[in-house]
Amino acid sequence: MIVQLKKGLDDQYKQEIIDKINDLKYKTTEVNTQKGDYIIGIGRTDFDIRQIGQLPGIADIHRVSDDYKLVSRKWKVKPATIDLGDGILVKEGSLSIMAGPCSIEGEEQIEKTIRHLKTNNVKIMRGGVYKPRSSPYSFRGLGIEGLKTWFKAAREAGIKIITEVMQVSQIEEMYDYIDIYQVGARNTQNFNLLDELGRVDKPVLIKRGISGTIDELLYSAEYVFSAGNENLMLCERGIRTYERASRNTMDINAIPILKEKTHLPVIADPSHGIGIRDHVEPVALACIIAGADGVIYETHEKPHEAFSDGQQTLNFNESEKLIHKMRKVFELRESM
Amino acid sequence: MIVQLKKGLDDQYKQEIIDKINDLKYKTTEVNTQKGDYIIGIGRTDFDIRQIGQLPGIADIHRVSDDYKLVSRKWKVKPATIDLGDGILVKEGSLSIMAGPCSIEGEEQIEKTIRHLKTNNVKIMRGGVYKPRSSPYSFRGLGIEGLKTWFKAAREAGIKIITEVMQVSQIEEMYDYIDIYQVGARNTQNFNLLDELGRVDKPVLIKRGISGTIDELLYSAEYVFSAGNENLMLCERGIRTYERASRNTMDINAIPILKEKTHLPVIADPSHGIGIRDHVEPVALACIIAGADGVIYETHEKPHEAFSDGQQTLNFNESEKLIHKMRKVFELRESM
Amino acid sequence: MIVQLKKGLDDQYKQEIIDKINDLKYKTTEVNTQKGDYIIGIGRTDFDIRQIGQLPGIADIHRVSDDYKLVSRKWKVKPATIDLGDGILVKEGSLSIMAGPCSIEGEEQIEKTIRHLKTNNVKIMRGGVYKPRSSPYSFRGLGIEGLKTWFKAAREAGIKIITEVMQVSQIEEMYDYIDIYQVGARNTQNFNLLDELGRVDKPVLIKRGISGTIDELLYSAEYVFSAGNENLMLCERGIRTYERASRNTMDINAIPILKEKTHLPVIADPSHGIGIRDHVEPVALACIIAGADGVIYETHEKPHEAFSDGQQTLNFNESEKLIHKMRKVFELRESM
Amino acid sequence: MIVQLKKGLDDQYKQEIIDKINDLKYKTTEVNTQKGDYIIGIGRTDFDIRQIGQLPGIADIHRVSDDYKLVSRKWKVKPATIDLGDGILVKEGSLSIMAGPCSIEGEEQIEKTIRHLKTNNVKIMRGGVYKPRSSPYSFRGLGIEGLKTWFKAAREAGIKIITEVMQVSQIEEMYDYIDIYQVGARNTQNFNLLDELGRVDKPVLIKRGISGTIDELLYSAEYVFSAGNENLMLCERGIRTYERASRNTMDINAIPILKEKTHLPVIADPSHGIGIRDHVEPVALACIIAGADGVIYETHEKPHEAFSDGQQTLNFNESEKLIHKMRKVFELRESM
Repeated sequence: MIVQLKKGLDDQYKQEIIDKINDLKYKTTEVNTQKGDYIIGIGRTDFDIRQIGQLPGIADIHRVSDDYKLVSRKWKVKPATIDLGDGILVKEGSLSIMAGPCSIEGEEQIEKTIRHLKTNNVKIMRGGVYKPRSSPYSFRGLGIEGLKTWFKAAREAGIKIITEVMQVSQIEEMYDYIDIYQVGARNTQNFNLLDELGRVDKPVLIKRGISGTIDELLYSAEYVFSAGNENLMLCERGIRTYERASRNTMDINAIPILKEKTHLPVIADPSHGIGIRDHVEPVALACIIAGADGVIYETHEKPHEAFSDGQQTLNFNESEKLIHKMRKVFELRESM
Repeated sequence: MIVQLKKGLDDQYKQEIIDKINDLKYKTTEVNTQKGDYIIGIGRTDFDIRQIGQLPGIADIHRVSDDYKLVSRKWKVKPATIDLGDGILVKEGSLSIMAGPCSIEGEEQIEKTIRHLKTNNVKIMRGGVYKPRSSPYSFRGLGIEGLKTWFKAAREAGIKIITEVMQVSQIEEMYDYIDIYQVGARNTQNFNLLDELGRVDKPVLIKRGISGTIDELLYSAEYVFSAGNENLMLCERGIRTYERASRNTMDINAIPILKEKTHLPVIADPSHGIGIRDHVEPVALACIIAGADGVIYETHEKPHEAFSDGQQTLNFNESEKLIHKMRKVFELRESM
Repeated sequence: MIVQLKKGLDDQYKQEIIDKINDLKYKTTEVNTQKGDYIIGIGRTDFDIRQIGQLPGIADIHRVSDDYKLVSRKWKVKPATIDLGDGILVKEGSLSIMAGPCSIEGEEQIEKTIRHLKTNNVKIMRGGVYKPRSSPYSFRGLGIEGLKTWFKAAREAGIKIITEVMQVSQIEEMYDYIDIYQVGARNTQNFNLLDELGRVDKPVLIKRGISGTIDELLYSAEYVFSAGNENLMLCERGIRTYERASRNTMDINAIPILKEKTHLPVIADPSHGIGIRDHVEPVALACIIAGADGVIYETHEKPHEAFSDGQQTLNFNESEKLIHKMRKVFELRESM
Repeated sequence: MIVQLKKGLDDQYKQEIIDKINDLKYKTTEVNTQKGDYIIGIGRTDFDIRQIGQLPGIADIHRVSDDYKLVSRKWKVKPATIDLGDGILVKEGSLSIMAGPCSIEGEEQIEKTIRHLKTNNVKIMRGGVYKPRSSPYSFRGLGIEGLKTWFKAAREAGIKIITEVMQVSQIEEMYDYIDIYQVGARNTQNFNLLDELGRVDKPVLIKRGISGTIDELLYSAEYVFSAGNENLMLCERGIRTYERASRNTMDINAIPILKEKTHLPVIADPSHGIGIRDHVEPVALACIIAGADGVIYETHEKPHEAFSDGQQTLNFNESEKLIHKMRKVFELRESM
């Protein structure tokens, strides 16, 4: 059960509400986000919801039978809108495009990418400065200095930045230079990182785990939300299976299922989802027609020279064509 | 290597060609389909293809490095067209819709479904008369008598029939009453069945195995093709994974990958791919925009009363909307 | 519910029993095996079992809440014993060793293998004469003639034969020359084959499907059993996963789980379970200590010259060591 | 390539070695562990290893074709020994037993568990004080205060402690109160955590990822090793598959494969591997006969009252029997 409290509620009233819920044998957790105050009740007994609803101080109350609560669509009829500033919104009914290289490599690459994005009216640039790599001997990214260079160029161009945060200490370090924190597929269940991201006031995009279930992704979002940060997006990026013809198996089913289960925006990552340059386009379009609120993909002026993920990265020509087609598919979807 | 022989080639010439290929340390298999005669050479040595190409009797010759040969797109530039008669074609650049119940249940259900299909200009009806069921105590279908009833009604209405064949003895039994043999996901590697289906002159649709790889699906098609039957379609229907929010994980990646690898038409089955009625539509549309040449799905007047698979079956209203949207998405795809 | 009927029960009494069960809203299936007659009731209502138990003609009655019934351990306290003749039994509390090549290749190979088995007091020889192969161009086995040659030599030596049956028509063809029919991993859900194997009076070993669940394996056994043949063994042979360091992932968990769920003997196939010669031994020993009633593995005089599966086949030296160790581990297990 | 340097080597000599390796087009990484100094060369060119071997300052040099280097068995003939003090060693040829509750719950539970372990001569106690939980509303452990209580009791009893570390900041916090840091299955690829664990001088046990491959586990170990800490153990704990009859699929194959690939000790976790109390024993015994150097499992005085994982936790009676049997199986293994 989710009990939404009135703003600025007196502690005494709050305690009465908590006591009442505990009386019903529900375990309570108090949640204070940047947008609201809630009491989450976890339990299984059946009761007349009006028993609580009539207490003073309650703005609204919702039964939520899912095990995740605050991210469930069952209580939030209105889907979330993530405001990145300058009128850039990530939300249902709109198509957010986030594009850029796998790794940030240097000034020239940044400039060229930004020019490509601006030409095509794309407002959000992706790129890695901290790279999770299976082998300790692989390139691990330019780090914070790379991010600062990137940020300077992006701000001048009016472009927003999304980049991966790999550990708690990077949250503060990165704070001034990013617009969206990305939680990578290997960190979807790094619960300490999620907890800490719940305490900042910048949006977070959580990728589905490498073999994560849809429910686990929702739980991970619940971590961030219940720690205080409602500005969340979820990202389907393919899961690990026995199929070897593609890098991952893009779970197209996850798009409509997530859209039904949660009020949070759902972004698709076709680059990792299939991992083959020639097929990024059809998978991206599929995700949009299936209901995705946005797409994040990899593009680079010269994919074969990219520091990482070249095999799944589009060149600017391919990227331009993709953007054009994605917008057409989105238009059709909204018109049907 | 595929050596396509001239029509009606004299045995002596053929033997010379075979000898020559054997000399190059290739193992040869002779393939005679309803459309052509081929020698397939399996081996790894490198040689000048013209050495063979100049022999009399050879129409064409192709190196094919894939382990499957005849179904590879590398030698057949022109994709296959499956002709069902009466101007009904399954082929690239067209959208084949195949719809109907999971199980054929009786005359009334058949009539109603046919009326629904005709109203929406759908030419191919699916339905099961032999049902593979995990439990021996479940309903196993009406069998050949159900098929005969269905066939009579379908022929009168100008509707083509696709239904699952489960064993060799059913091939002949069904022959007069069907238009497409369907090989189910549990029989994708039933090699004897595939061999025998290679000997009939009716089209075959092969579903991907329950946990089959894309390569295995292509190999299974190679079985049918090399046994003589070129009239083949492949069907992506989702694979088994650890994700429990859906019945299967629809492998959207398989659509563009199959379209690249083979000249055979690729059909998508969103009903089994996700297994949830409310989400069949977005998955179907996704498969079309991703390049599928057709869609096969389950519809029933009253899904909750269906003998099987009710939870993933559309009612006629939902089905009609889906058909309408699929055609719009297909139109957009072809126009881009 | 399983209602075991008295031997030679009059039809009228039987009908009364069926009617009574139907009255309780259970769907009934009559099962007549070579060993007994049963009525299987499928349903969900709750009732006092004595209501039926008092009817004349009933030998015994068991509630079985599993969806599979006749293969469940819940009603058969005494585990099954499969009698191969000549005092050779497959059963709980004993270690059945089945060894031999992947493919039967010819007389010399047969003779040498038999000698190796006899030297080590192994009574059951495995070998394939019909080979399921992904590619139609691979070696598919010597067929029935190979089986006849093998049978002759094996009978003289007092060795029993287990070999894979791939299709219904082979059941009769093979009947005189085998002791155990093996259903391969690609045919675990070939329900027509299972049905027909239920009608013969020779033992059947069913391998778990390539990505089959434990429940599906039990259901497949239920098919054979309910069609009349109680002489069944189950075989764990590894399942398909994303792990690429081994051919399959041997599911060691399946051994104790199957032993708990069913009264049928459980055999382990470490050769396919790991697919790496050097590691067949530890996996075989693991399966025995975990409770397997037998082991089936591949051995060949010269594995590197074997027609198939050489990489997972033991030579006779390795095989002899394995047999020795397996018996020691089995002895320890029984003593603890 | 791994170049092992002589102790206390002059910087000039070291630079010469690095230069020489770079000349051969190998990328070098310098590694200084608590036990030795190494230069790791990553590259693909072929050369005469003596060209480098003759340089002054080199203690030893090894070609290692695996992508992981320092953890590979190819260069370290002698398997690693982890010394926990007081004569307690984890190493090949010995059976390390680590047992205890899923969660540390309080003083009484600690005392009872320690008594149980001492009675059975078990030297290492497991238990969680920081618990990774899918849901933010679940019990997350007693934290550092719980650890201090536990440590005090364990030290008095001469028992060593292994517990999970979830984030970088906990490494130092925990340092004085533990003997082995455990990296959980959700953190196997938390590379920052691995890097930092490379900088401490206490042993680390790394669990295989929830859907991690064997290679990824080895890479994760390479992270810790190359950051300076050689005191490493690996732990197989089952992987996620579609099989629902067990919590995970215990990958028995991983035991012999890891033993062949790495010189690090390999520990098995049957509790998580199968997740069913009744079947922990057979799986534990299977892992030992297959070559595991140790077993870690969950035990609790009253499993049904445990704060977490009760369904897979042994009571002390069951635990005692298991210990007894494990030692017998280990004895047999060593004797064969």
